[in-house]
Amino acid sequence: MLPPLDLDAYLADCRSLVLEQLRAQIARRSGPRRALYDLVLDYPLRPAKGLRPALCIATCRSLGGSLEAALPSASVLELYHNAFLIHDDVEDGSEKRRDLDTLHRTQGVPIAVNVGDAMLAMALEPLLDNMHVLDMGRALRILETVSVMARESAEGQAVELDWVRHARWDATDAEYLAMVDQKTGWYSFVAPMTLGALCANAPRAQVDALGAFALKLGAAFQIIDDVLNLMADAHAYGKEIAGDLWEGKHTLIVLHTLRCMGDADRREALAILGKARPSLSAEAAHSEALIARLQGLERAGQLGPEAREALRPWLGRTPQVKTDAEVRWLLAQIERHGSLDYARALAVARAREAGAMLAEFTWIEPSIHRQVLEGVVEYVVARDR
Amino acid sequence: MLPPLDLDAYLADCRSLVLEQLRAQIARRSGPRRALYDLVLDYPLRPAKGLRPALCIATCRSLGGSLEAALPSASVLELYHNAFLIHDDVEDGSEKRRDLDTLHRTQGVPIAVNVGDAMLAMALEPLLDNMHVLDMGRALRILETVSVMARESAEGQAVELDWVRHARWDATDAEYLAMVDQKTGWYSFVAPMTLGALCANAPRAQVDALGAFALKLGAAFQIIDDVLNLMADAHAYGKEIAGDLWEGKHTLIVLHTLRCMGDADRREALAILGKARPSLSAEAAHSEALIARLQGLERAGQLGPEAREALRPWLGRTPQVKTDAEVRWLLAQIERHGSLDYARALAVARAREAGAMLAEFTWIEPSIHRQVLEGVVEYVVARDR
Repeated sequence: MLPPLDLDAYLADCRSLVLEQLRAQIARRSGPRRALYDLVLDYPLRPAKGLRPALCIATCRSLGGSLEAALPSASVLELYHNAFLIHDDVEDGSEKRRDLDTLHRTQGVPIAVNVGDAMLAMALEPLLDNMHVLDMGRALRILETVSVMARESAEGQAVELDWVRHARWDATDAEYLAMVDQKTGWYSFVAPMTLGALCANAPRAQVDALGAFALKLGAAFQIIDDVLNLMADAHAYGKEIAGDLWEGKHTLIVLHTLRCMGDADRREALAILGKARPSLSAEAAHSEALIARLQGLERAGQLGPEAREALRPWLGRTPQVKTDAEVRWLLAQIERHGSLDYARALAVARAREAGAMLAEFTWIEPSIHRQVLEGVVEYVVARDR
Repeated sequence: MLPPLDLDAYLADCRSLVLEQLRAQIARRSGPRRALYDLVLDYPLRPAKGLRPALCIATCRSLGGSLEAALPSASVLELYHNAFLIHDDVEDGSEKRRDLDTLHRTQGVPIAVNVGDAMLAMALEPLLDNMHVLDMGRALRILETVSVMARESAEGQAVELDWVRHARWDATDAEYLAMVDQKTGWYSFVAPMTLGALCANAPRAQVDALGAFALKLGAAFQIIDDVLNLMADAHAYGKEIAGDLWEGKHTLIVLHTLRCMGDADRREALAILGKARPSLSAEAAHSEALIARLQGLERAGQLGPEAREALRPWLGRTPQVKTDAEVRWLLAQIERHGSLDYARALAVARAREAGAMLAEFTWIEPSIHRQVLEGVVEYVVARDR
């Protein structure tokens, strides 16, 4: 009989092992500390669950592989994950990451983009280490998997950015789920578990079965992530309140609400979603403040007719950024159409399917590592942050 | 006796072979065409010399290796090069690339960053192909070299971005050259020739000798690049006139001029270099236009006393962007202190050293491919664009 699982402790152990790897990798470098490698460590050192490395390690060990066999791959995952976070934050104009300012807000976009690139470069090193830690065949299959992972992520991100750019809000659930499988599911679940299984030298049928299980789990995880974003308050969840609505992010929830709405409400919702989030850039804030001041002067009768004529394009401008009231209206619509429940039910169904698959994996012996996989299935839908 | 070399034709051949590889790689993908893979091809299809793939192929073939052995590596170089160009253009706020608008100007920063990431992901595939085209040992040494290349590039870029961010203009020539070796020399010259030699299965001593030769050549190339940027007119060179001064780029030339200046001129020059380039972003242009209009209204006596008081912070604003006159003044200072000649002489000396090294490489038999290497040494300093 195994003792009850302490999932948080297992995740924390895996995370500190991977951070140790990362620190050791950086210690071998003679390159710029303050200007680069301190920044490489910025996101990884912020409090985080460390789900990806833990999934890799737990999968490897549950199949009889050693910790040492999984560590370089876990490190690769952590480097890719944080590089993607940095670049995603730039791409989405996000302001907070794990309760702190995003890297591009503290360092500027140029440095943030380059720090992400440096982490993608660093990810090649543990892949090479694998050639010594494992046999060549396994090391190569791991490299192949990472190649697919990087491609899937970029393709998924391209689909989402295209929806944003062209204000495409008619994606079906199937299209949304395909996008999320590529953008998030692959690198957050499929790759960690596939790499873990490859590290353990599992037969191909088991590797594939775990990949299919991971894809279900990944979809459930992402949907719940989107639900929590719109439910929780800022303290309970490390992003802005309803940050996804401010960002105009395409989620299953918003797509559902739009489908359920009458035409008039839908037009209103699309108009709001199409507005930018209020920018915090000094340049834009400067311009907004000036326009507000001019509008105030006009209302106070302080502008003569010639000034009013000359300034007409600015005086008549309505703010093109979302307001609190608009975001609250969207939230009320989401509530009204039951879209959070709709999305959560879909996520729970996926997680149950994943759980049923795992129950069939009798080739994974009972162990704390198997318990972790089972625990993650629970966690994905039960978590509140 | 070999026929005279047509360097341009050789470069063009190599470039079209690599583009064919790239197109074939994309044809195998089911991912988004318009939203991703068309954009992946955007920079590679713009007219370019294709120096990096040609250096890789010429080095491989000059050492008796086959074209087929070099092609995947040449493809890797082209993918990295163009990914770096896209990200560099974002980081430097560049407006033109090869005479056309930069990708982030046509697609926005988010999509441009992701297209670069997609190309970095795609670069893993030909590295895996190498495992089949070449023996495992060579394929692994190539992967190791690419890992070093990616790291060196990111470190060099980090050093330069740090200089920009902290307005550090006292770098010595040695510091500048070390930065440029990392940022450009490694991926543009050292990696192409090292990979070419590895593809040909050259002994380590030859690989290392070619790497040292390439580093000299790379420094010469970059310095001449900077000289041409400040000399040529917009038609003869595919960037803006004196684009490096508008960008406030750290070059050997500007560093030399600053060292030669008296204190008063240096203060003036640093003040100008510290100003932003005029931004073409809609938001900023909007704000600048409004301020200019307000200043015009004030001069015409159209603003009452209360409006003048309320608008004082904006009415008193001097433009914080560089002006044509300021950039011309910098160019005149550069001329006055002979900094272009100084930099060119340094580049010519490096290229001569490289030429002398190549003359000693008697283990490279005479061939059109050896002629290409010799031709590139000539070209680096003789080119006018």
